[in-house]
Amino acid sequence: MKCKMSEKTQGYKGTRDFYPEDKRLQKWMFSVIRQVVEKFGYEEYDAPMLENTEVFTLKGSDEIVSEQSYTFTDRGDRSVTIRTEMTPSVSRMVAARRQELAYPLRWYSMPNLWRYERPQRGRLREFWQPNVDIFGIAGIEGDFEIIQIADAILQGFKAKRDSYKIRINSRKLMDAVLNDYIGLSAVEADTIRRLIDKRAKMSEPEFVAELGAVMNPTQREDGSPEKLLAVLDTKEVKDLPGGLKDYPSVKELEKLLKMLADAGVSNAMFDPSIMRGFDYYTDIVFEVFDESPDNNRSMYGGGRYDGLVGLFGVEPVPTVGLALGDVTLENFLRDNNLIPSLKTETQLCIALVGDVFDGAQKVVSKLREEGVCVAVDMTNRKLGKQIETAVKKGIPYLLVIGDEELKTDRYKLKDLRSSEEKECSLERIVSTVLSK
Amino acid sequence: MKCKMSEKTQGYKGTRDFYPEDKRLQKWMFSVIRQVVEKFGYEEYDAPMLENTEVFTLKGSDEIVSEQSYTFTDRGDRSVTIRTEMTPSVSRMVAARRQELAYPLRWYSMPNLWRYERPQRGRLREFWQPNVDIFGIAGIEGDFEIIQIADAILQGFKAKRDSYKIRINSRKLMDAVLNDYIGLSAVEADTIRRLIDKRAKMSEPEFVAELGAVMNPTQREDGSPEKLLAVLDTKEVKDLPGGLKDYPSVKELEKLLKMLADAGVSNAMFDPSIMRGFDYYTDIVFEVFDESPDNNRSMYGGGRYDGLVGLFGVEPVPTVGLALGDVTLENFLRDNNLIPSLKTETQLCIALVGDVFDGAQKVVSKLREEGVCVAVDMTNRKLGKQIETAVKKGIPYLLVIGDEELKTDRYKLKDLRSSEEKECSLERIVSTVLSK
Repeated sequence: MKCKMSEKTQGYKGTRDFYPEDKRLQKWMFSVIRQVVEKFGYEEYDAPMLENTEVFTLKGSDEIVSEQSYTFTDRGDRSVTIRTEMTPSVSRMVAARRQELAYPLRWYSMPNLWRYERPQRGRLREFWQPNVDIFGIAGIEGDFEIIQIADAILQGFKAKRDSYKIRINSRKLMDAVLNDYIGLSAVEADTIRRLIDKRAKMSEPEFVAELGAVMNPTQREDGSPEKLLAVLDTKEVKDLPGGLKDYPSVKELEKLLKMLADAGVSNAMFDPSIMRGFDYYTDIVFEVFDESPDNNRSMYGGGRYDGLVGLFGVEPVPTVGLALGDVTLENFLRDNNLIPSLKTETQLCIALVGDVFDGAQKVVSKLREEGVCVAVDMTNRKLGKQIETAVKKGIPYLLVIGDEELKTDRYKLKDLRSSEEKECSLERIVSTVLSK
Repeated sequence: MKCKMSEKTQGYKGTRDFYPEDKRLQKWMFSVIRQVVEKFGYEEYDAPMLENTEVFTLKGSDEIVSEQSYTFTDRGDRSVTIRTEMTPSVSRMVAARRQELAYPLRWYSMPNLWRYERPQRGRLREFWQPNVDIFGIAGIEGDFEIIQIADAILQGFKAKRDSYKIRINSRKLMDAVLNDYIGLSAVEADTIRRLIDKRAKMSEPEFVAELGAVMNPTQREDGSPEKLLAVLDTKEVKDLPGGLKDYPSVKELEKLLKMLADAGVSNAMFDPSIMRGFDYYTDIVFEVFDESPDNNRSMYGGGRYDGLVGLFGVEPVPTVGLALGDVTLENFLRDNNLIPSLKTETQLCIALVGDVFDGAQKVVSKLREEGVCVAVDMTNRKLGKQIETAVKKGIPYLLVIGDEELKTDRYKLKDLRSSEEKECSLERIVSTVLSK
């Protein structure tokens, strides 16, 4: 299919071209995240961008894989899928070296993922999703650390504590609520779980109506919908209805919330409506919410998934992880004015006046050897034009080189931000440029 | 298709799993390349991993796209291709902002690329290929800078100058040789060009035989194959047969080689057999060869391609670029013993003795605040096991925390490399760990 001229330069729908200023922003965001997670002892890994499709289907049917994945057949007739999330790949990698790895494993990655979606605010077809996982810790200390990191990442970006909330729930508690406390069958419980997961995107009457629709007349008559709603609207663990408070999962939740409060994560709270979409979560789940009134929604989250590594044919490994989409994060940082002005790495532009390209090489090499990032303007344009370009690129310093400068070995260094200019030696130029 | 248990944990054929030690190596290689190219004023960009297929077919038919690309139809019935090289995408990006960009543009990227190949040494289906391009310089200064960077990258890895050679040719010169000097038709010239490109992979008699086979009887009788072989075996520009020496492209080559020699790139040389596979090259082309006797082959290369941006419907932009595969580079560095021992970023492991996880949190937080990368062993195993794990992970220091340490605020810091141990304060621990 031949496209029109004007369309030729457009990238594939739902993707972004990262021009240097965009890439700089992404690199900055990732470097903040790297700094935070490395403080907690995490090491970076990566997995291939394409996997055999069964890596994604092993964990059972999944809406994202069946409806949104880029799945196709390769030239050797094998079904392959571009990763839609990192969790199955990292679980495969851990399973492959189950015996030889030294636990606890603390791993992070910065993968790009692909989902065939209708592009909209916060959602694109290609996005990056920093993943942070701890393998080998069955106790609540693992959940604590991952949630602490979920918080430390936003703290690393200098987010104000009242600009986000961390909402925490327990899948085990919800199983107890749905199966024991309300008395639903496994199939009903599953349907209700999915409904709860969508609650934030529905109006309250809609949700109540759907809840009633899923339950049978007996359940409706004995007040099950109201009983469930009462649980879902509980604000604190201690306010849970009587019988529930004695479940071990509730004790765990209480302990976790106390640990977080003690560690200064004062905006972590219990929220029985938090389910998380993926089926593989087995216990604690959490979501980090943007608290701005205009954009109150879940930004990212994670939880415990103790069964996934085991699906690859080895003994299971208890795991807790989080995943954080770059588009949502960038929107949050932008809305909260947390993105600093980011500058080009290039520190010095050299403008050449006259036929001095060859003669200037020694100076250029010397500056680079001393550690200066130097861009030479070799366009032979008028000096004014060369300066204009350097300013447009945001390069802080400019050095003009002509015959006279090469003869005397004295140069005029211009600070393009202040327009100050002073004549100095090469040594002085190096120290001035590197000191800023 | 359900795979056997033992196959479950294997990644897709021709791909690599990057465990932390592998990722560390890749990050180190890329950081060396980033440092070098940023010294030359280059800025990082990125493009989507999937492109509309026409981005790759716009430049005409191409063996890689038609036979080796991952091309498929998305859920919206659009033909898409996973990038096989970066050049078409970056050309599209420049074309999209042709008017507003400030030239010369110096851009680099670190993309992963995909080609459906039979995996072998130096070739995988997923590989990374740092790309470095300068846009907007029509003169030889652009070619000079890119070849200088091709050299500076290996110098950045501390490669010895005699371990590689940079072989340079001119497509314009070869056009003159094939069309004017030998008198071939355009079609014949094209076939011969492809044959020359494969010369390094053939035996000499094979090559001579194929050369004869392409030419017609008249050409064979008037000695055309011998004339061409004489050109191809020329070692220095000044030894080219008489008439060729006056071509402007020869003057350019001479100028370029002199500039490189003056800049200290003493292993750059003329080689009329260098063609480069891609059709889009228009003038100077070059390849960097591994000079080890066991593995003498082209590692990477580049050249001038002045027409590609213009194919996207805008005024053309003169461009020179290079691309460098990570697998080939890693093999070269390994063979030449240029890979240093790379360590984990984690600086300190904290072993907990007894039920002190909660109590130790203040110490852990304090250390992280001071900038130390701390991994807490929360496995509750015996101290010996915890130390064993820390050693296996290559963490340099270990701190043991038990009730006694928390009470006295004095800690034993163990250097896991020397096994030395000393009792000290937290301040002392921070300064010791950060100083190494």
